[in-house]
Amino acid sequence: MSKKPVILVTNDDGITAPGIRALIAVMKELGDVVVVAPDSPQSGTGHAITVNSTLFIEKFSIDPDLNHEYACSGTPVDCVKFALDQVIKERPTICVSGINHGLNSATSVLYSGTMSAAIEAGMNKIPAIGFSYADFSWNADFEGLKPYIKKITEQVLQNGLPDGTVLNVNFPHLKNEIKGIKICRQANATWVESFDERTNPHGRKYYWLTGTFENHDKGNDTDEWALSQGYISIVPVQYDLTAYHAIPHLNSWDL
Amino acid sequence: MSKKPVILVTNDDGITAPGIRALIAVMKELGDVVVVAPDSPQSGTGHAITVNSTLFIEKFSIDPDLNHEYACSGTPVDCVKFALDQVIKERPTICVSGINHGLNSATSVLYSGTMSAAIEAGMNKIPAIGFSYADFSWNADFEGLKPYIKKITEQVLQNGLPDGTVLNVNFPHLKNEIKGIKICRQANATWVESFDERTNPHGRKYYWLTGTFENHDKGNDTDEWALSQGYISIVPVQYDLTAYHAIPHLNSWDL
Repeated sequence: MSKKPVILVTNDDGITAPGIRALIAVMKELGDVVVVAPDSPQSGTGHAITVNSTLFIEKFSIDPDLNHEYACSGTPVDCVKFALDQVIKERPTICVSGINHGLNSATSVLYSGTMSAAIEAGMNKIPAIGFSYADFSWNADFEGLKPYIKKITEQVLQNGLPDGTVLNVNFPHLKNEIKGIKICRQANATWVESFDERTNPHGRKYYWLTGTFENHDKGNDTDEWALSQGYISIVPVQYDLTAYHAIPHLNSWDL
Repeated sequence: MSKKPVILVTNDDGITAPGIRALIAVMKELGDVVVVAPDSPQSGTGHAITVNSTLFIEKFSIDPDLNHEYACSGTPVDCVKFALDQVIKERPTICVSGINHGLNSATSVLYSGTMSAAIEAGMNKIPAIGFSYADFSWNADFEGLKPYIKKITEQVLQNGLPDGTVLNVNFPHLKNEIKGIKICRQANATWVESFDERTNPHGRKYYWLTGTFENHDKGNDTDEWALSQGYISIVPVQYDLTAYHAIPHLNSWDL
């Protein structure tokens, strides 16, 4: 009998979020689950790590089936690092992150704590997948996503992933029928920010960061296109950020 | 007479750090300088943005030559977003970030607030450069770096940068002679973490994240190699994280 996979589960919305509980439910069908997740929402933390402050990390118990649930005061990347150093003696077979309440398509991948956790696992040579859903609400219904999440995770368990890559999986809203799965590139879309200026009760100005998402990428091979057409998008993401095509150009400079 | 370039300067060590003051000194020779930088150290914040909290951003005056210095309670990426939305009416000609007290070579680029600020500017189609120096100390001597920083920035002002790329520039320690400049790829090196467990006065366990840097990449075209040989390394960095080479492989899966 082959050994069951050890599956590390994390997220950025916090250990109590319905998204991670749905992901845990699927993973329990596939292997032994270890959860290390933030104790509070960490959206937009990107690849941040906690170097100038201390971390509280404590055993937690939401799911009576699990022996290893930990809540961490830090970021999703801290959670992965702690899991690898302190919780899982052998390496996990796979790491899954999410299900994020909200999409992490296009350039949102850079700001996403969900995807940064997956990337951190990938940097440690652990196959990893981030899952995100086009519904921001806390009470989003993740039930219909479960068969797709199981299928994609099984494929990664069977096939592994190409060296240096992790998967960014985004789901369109289930109010429309899902048409299938598309392997995509990251759309060249951006957030255009604006700052909402206010004054606090002490007369001091403060700001809220707000923004609108603008996609000027017309390609029909992008994650944004796939999602708009009702497909689940999968983008293979790499953490070697070198722009190889730019090296010859830069070598022609007078430096 | 051609218009002077508008140069946005930021960093992750905070607006008072000697590294950013050295960078500002060089940029004043090249154009009109606008500074928007964190009001406190933000090392290791990666591409984090402040979405669940308010931001305080206030006019600051360290350098009497400058009309626009702002200190921001948020991350380096927040600083760039605020500069573009609130401070600089026209787009800046270029954005420079640093000089970081400490290297941001290899995979450190992913954790680096310095480089994330440059990447954020790049995502807004502004040519951008992050500068980092192999000396962590607050009193690091940046004087000898200035001619190199000026030359590299002048080249970017003259030539622009290939679409979708920003530069990650790292300087070896000046205690050794600098041999020149090499265009490199990001070394496939990683941080191997360990958590230092302690107990606080109330009996609660807490942790400090620590780690050692391990480079198993033997290539002599990497930033780590160049730095070890006494060269300044320049890696062109892209924010399209798509692993294009993995797309055909994933398309062969049963999904």
